[in-house]
Amino acid sequence: MAGTVESLRQTRQMREVFGPVLKRMEDVEAFFRRELADALPTVRDVAGWVLDSGGKRLRPALLLLISRMLGYKGERQIRYAAVVELIHTATLIHDDIIDESDLRRGRPTANQKWGNQATVLVGDWLYSRCMDLCLEVGDVEVMRRLVDATLKMTEGEILADQVRGRIDLDEATYLEITRRKTAELFAATCAVPALFQPSTLHHTETLLELGRELGLCFQLVDDVLDYTASRAQLGKPVLADLREGRVTLPLILLLPRLDSRQLEGIAEVARTGEFGSVDEHEVLDLVRTSGVLDEVRRRAAAAADRAIERTCALPEGPERQSLVTVAGLLLDRSK
Amino acid sequence: MAGTVESLRQTRQMREVFGPVLKRMEDVEAFFRRELADALPTVRDVAGWVLDSGGKRLRPALLLLISRMLGYKGERQIRYAAVVELIHTATLIHDDIIDESDLRRGRPTANQKWGNQATVLVGDWLYSRCMDLCLEVGDVEVMRRLVDATLKMTEGEILADQVRGRIDLDEATYLEITRRKTAELFAATCAVPALFQPSTLHHTETLLELGRELGLCFQLVDDVLDYTASRAQLGKPVLADLREGRVTLPLILLLPRLDSRQLEGIAEVARTGEFGSVDEHEVLDLVRTSGVLDEVRRRAAAAADRAIERTCALPEGPERQSLVTVAGLLLDRSK
Repeated sequence: MAGTVESLRQTRQMREVFGPVLKRMEDVEAFFRRELADALPTVRDVAGWVLDSGGKRLRPALLLLISRMLGYKGERQIRYAAVVELIHTATLIHDDIIDESDLRRGRPTANQKWGNQATVLVGDWLYSRCMDLCLEVGDVEVMRRLVDATLKMTEGEILADQVRGRIDLDEATYLEITRRKTAELFAATCAVPALFQPSTLHHTETLLELGRELGLCFQLVDDVLDYTASRAQLGKPVLADLREGRVTLPLILLLPRLDSRQLEGIAEVARTGEFGSVDEHEVLDLVRTSGVLDEVRRRAAAAADRAIERTCALPEGPERQSLVTVAGLLLDRSK
Repeated sequence: MAGTVESLRQTRQMREVFGPVLKRMEDVEAFFRRELADALPTVRDVAGWVLDSGGKRLRPALLLLISRMLGYKGERQIRYAAVVELIHTATLIHDDIIDESDLRRGRPTANQKWGNQATVLVGDWLYSRCMDLCLEVGDVEVMRRLVDATLKMTEGEILADQVRGRIDLDEATYLEITRRKTAELFAATCAVPALFQPSTLHHTETLLELGRELGLCFQLVDDVLDYTASRAQLGKPVLADLREGRVTLPLILLLPRLDSRQLEGIAEVARTGEFGSVDEHEVLDLVRTSGVLDEVRRRAAAAADRAIERTCALPEGPERQSLVTVAGLLLDRSK
């Protein structure tokens, strides 16, 4: 219960920090509704299901906040805030096929409800539709960023799939996968607003770096949560990463400290998805008492610090201050 | 055996008709090799497997032949000939997940060899990489055509998935699915070369229509072949469409002529993929003796005729004549 209250508090803080763009966020929701209303019924059902599953809309909110910081007042921010969330949605839909997951955000996954057939296709449709939405307004530079991010995300997923179930994954490879899989879409999300006006183009690189650090922080915290949060908070079983053979930083840091029985037991879970010679509680206990979670939190904090440092080069004002707060809130989730 | 000799003869004729662009076709193959050499190992393996599976490269050949007809001598034709084949390859890779097929072109499918995980991702990667290849040269109009075709193809697949297993599919819906699923990529393939030079832009509409008719002809013939060709010719089991619940025009035309036992038996195969109260031979016999295949061939011939009619508005010369021959050869496959 304490966890839920804490999570509600953080959600409220998140809403406060994005307060100045809440009206715009409603425009983005209206954009989704129009998109779905015009789509084929299967697209409407599957994409609607995932879009309505209680995602935090972090990427659209960041894009709108940064647009506001850069003094952009036009309508393209609504379109691209929607596009980055739709790209994210497409990856979630395809990820659930890949992971053969049954639950996401506490509800059955789309492929669980509609099968692999429909979900492969709806993911494909969303990716293409996102390109179409860029082409409608002819923003080649924005497309370049988004296509680049999508390619790298897919490459990150492919690399992750290659090392799935292998507990000998090294830290450098883990970081490379995380950078591509998560950080690049955050980077594009933050940098796209700089492309809306010639006068803000020079902020592109800083915003890309800011986004990468926020993305890294976000993912490291997610990796911690998989070992600390409750099933209710996660909306999926705890230790989902390990069960799916996804070896993340907490485990990479833990492994050198284990004896051979523990190692073999964890390797077995990563390989088979089933707990055998070690049980769930032993794994949780090992991770939680070893100090590795604090170490991962420190890495996440360092990423948040680097993100905050980047903001110094950006236009002063309440939005810049909000970006600093966002970095802190992303980190706070791990407590 | 007669079928194989016939098929070889047609392949030779196909090579002859595309003779003037064979050198360019080799450039396209070199383009694929470079792309795969630079890609992640999983992409190289999966995409390489499908690209090397003996596809006829019909789309690249058409794009090159039409480029030549329009007097285009630049290098963009190589890139886009590769892109249309890569888009086609991505759809094949995702189709095999959707159909849960084991065989394509006589070999195990990619998902059979590498699993759904890798093949979902490699398909995604290919789609994004195709957009990237367009962006590298900044051809927004070409991208618009290709994105539009990809969207419609995906919509065709989604519609096909919705009616899968339903023998009450009507002809209009079947034609709508076929148009989107197959004809739109042919249309884009044929029209893209018109976009290379301002002086040929006015051919765009004619070439789109030409491509749509060729695509329709191609698909109708494919639907006939599923009932007439041998397993060796198809590279997959005969009656694969019916087993996968894909109700195509021969069956749509046949159903009104069946008694209730036959209807129920065929409905069962479409629904379950298993032959029960009717067997394979009975279905083949019904289709082959009913005259519906001739009717479908007539529709394919009419599409080929309309394609040939469109060529009248295009620049005279040996390439235009070759397009006429291609239409005839696509049709000939059904014999």
